[in-house]
Amino acid sequence: MKITLLAGGVGGARFTRGLLHLLAERYPDGEGGTTAEVTVVANTGDDMWLHGVRVCPDLDTVMYTLGGAIHEGQGWGRQDESSRVSADLAAYDLGWEWFTLGDLDLATHLARTELLRAGKTLTEVTAHLCRRWNPGVTLLPMSDQPVETHVVVGEGTPEDPERLIHFEEWWVRHRAGIPARRFEQVGVDSASATPEVLDAIMTADLVLLPPSNPVVSVGTILGVPRIREALNATPAPVVGISPIVGGAAVRGMADACLATIGVETSALAVGLHYGAREGLDSDDLIEGDGQAEAAAGRIGVIDGWLVDDSDHEAVSGLEAGGIRSRAVPLLMTDDAATAQIAAAALDLAGFR
Amino acid sequence: MKITLLAGGVGGARFTRGLLHLLAERYPDGEGGTTAEVTVVANTGDDMWLHGVRVCPDLDTVMYTLGGAIHEGQGWGRQDESSRVSADLAAYDLGWEWFTLGDLDLATHLARTELLRAGKTLTEVTAHLCRRWNPGVTLLPMSDQPVETHVVVGEGTPEDPERLIHFEEWWVRHRAGIPARRFEQVGVDSASATPEVLDAIMTADLVLLPPSNPVVSVGTILGVPRIREALNATPAPVVGISPIVGGAAVRGMADACLATIGVETSALAVGLHYGAREGLDSDDLIEGDGQAEAAAGRIGVIDGWLVDDSDHEAVSGLEAGGIRSRAVPLLMTDDAATAQIAAAALDLAGFR
Repeated sequence: MKITLLAGGVGGARFTRGLLHLLAERYPDGEGGTTAEVTVVANTGDDMWLHGVRVCPDLDTVMYTLGGAIHEGQGWGRQDESSRVSADLAAYDLGWEWFTLGDLDLATHLARTELLRAGKTLTEVTAHLCRRWNPGVTLLPMSDQPVETHVVVGEGTPEDPERLIHFEEWWVRHRAGIPARRFEQVGVDSASATPEVLDAIMTADLVLLPPSNPVVSVGTILGVPRIREALNATPAPVVGISPIVGGAAVRGMADACLATIGVETSALAVGLHYGAREGLDSDDLIEGDGQAEAAAGRIGVIDGWLVDDSDHEAVSGLEAGGIRSRAVPLLMTDDAATAQIAAAALDLAGFR
Repeated sequence: MKITLLAGGVGGARFTRGLLHLLAERYPDGEGGTTAEVTVVANTGDDMWLHGVRVCPDLDTVMYTLGGAIHEGQGWGRQDESSRVSADLAAYDLGWEWFTLGDLDLATHLARTELLRAGKTLTEVTAHLCRRWNPGVTLLPMSDQPVETHVVVGEGTPEDPERLIHFEEWWVRHRAGIPARRFEQVGVDSASATPEVLDAIMTADLVLLPPSNPVVSVGTILGVPRIREALNATPAPVVGISPIVGGAAVRGMADACLATIGVETSALAVGLHYGAREGLDSDDLIEGDGQAEAAAGRIGVIDGWLVDDSDHEAVSGLEAGGIRSRAVPLLMTDDAATAQIAAAALDLAGFR
């Protein structure tokens, strides 16, 4: 059993942890783990250089969460870390006071930076870092090229001109409270999905979209050339789990992101935004027409969409849109509850 | 009164601290400081990239020592720092177990790296960092280009081929215990002294060589194009303080360095190695002949050389070599004792 997930940070990491619990029961390896092969393709659109080191928030959140090192209270960063170094940096009048790098987290960034500067790809670097944490999955960045999400803010008037700020500044500093006119993936034109990512999608038995932000996490991954096409061409079913429950994001500020791209904050609207796969085959994509449509985001990518019990009325609308759907409890209160959500996703894809 | 020093790390920093005590008495500014302008040109040959951050050991030792932040026990690094981050880095199987970056020191390297990556010169970066610590001097790197001292080791046989290792590896890891065949200043061919360094030498009333390593600290600075020439062309007297007392280095492993360049470990030999200034004027240097000789290290750079009382027999040999000399107690046991050494250096240069 090979499962590939396209994930953001906290939501993707916690869902994957629950999935691994389920897989250890369904496909046990006799040693407490699973024979199932799980690959997590993580969003790297939030990555940035800060103080000269490379910070990859989503990769690290997945690695720490699955490796048992996460600061559970925050959902990101390392347990038992301190702000000794960032406080000292602030004394040099540098850095962002609203973005604190914990000291142990910083060790990860230093290690990554050293390896990147030595010429390794981000895929290779991530594998090196994961050897320490044993996350139980193959963790892959969506691309080895930097593709950093920026946010266009400002009214476009002389007093408030349009300007581009890094996603983390908009998200963490402004708590997504400044209207975003649009998102830009800086660097995407010269970026590509890695062979490892395309292979993980094409050879999977099942592809899952965990309850991550549909715009700036999964949407960012889908924006990387050839990933949307691969999702269409893979023989595996593609099933997503709604991050929107009862008209609100379970965590994070997905509503502000959805508003920016003109999608309602509802389980139904997000499912339809992903859209039903149209059964393109790889020939369509190679010929080029499919690629152009995929690049424009007009090709749907899911076969199934799980919504929360409270959104059960969305099921018929999704089915009418060609998307298999079911309503189940979607709150990831603990790993056992999350494993049940994962079980429902496998069910919906025909794996029992 | 303008004084410029060419300094390495601990010895240079401690001497300068004593000098500032003396100057506060001789040229008081009425607020506990001095009206004298002191510039420290620091060796950057020990600099290196480690974990993707730029480490400048001598600049930082001078900055911390004069700014009251030094770890006095070590002589380098920051007081109250911990190894939390470097221990975590080691868990990634990265870094050098023999070279530990303290966590607070690391904040300095991160700040420096951020500013360098933003396009600032090392001179500008150093000024930024010093605004926090107020060292009471103008601290300048010898060059804005990387000039990293490497050590050629190995017998040159098939079993033990010649190889180049970074100075810090030879010094810290091997405690200078592997025979060094020669030193190489990697990058020196495309490096130059900064305008600030040349100006500090040319406009000084007095130039001092504190008791720093004559080979890999002061010698490295002298190897940077145009610095040796400037020392000859400056109207200021140039006086050095012997780092060798009673045939041994007061601290550090200068004997191994001196052996490599074929100079005896004695106050006399080191003074003669620096050599008497030959009164070249700037025209000689501009014409080119002086430059070639300077580059070959054949032009002497000092007018005076202080030796320890125990080396008083060296005085006549130095004077015979055209170098004014005097024997005084040279152990920098505390700032008061060091101020007395500085006073003797000023005396020797004719400033009372």
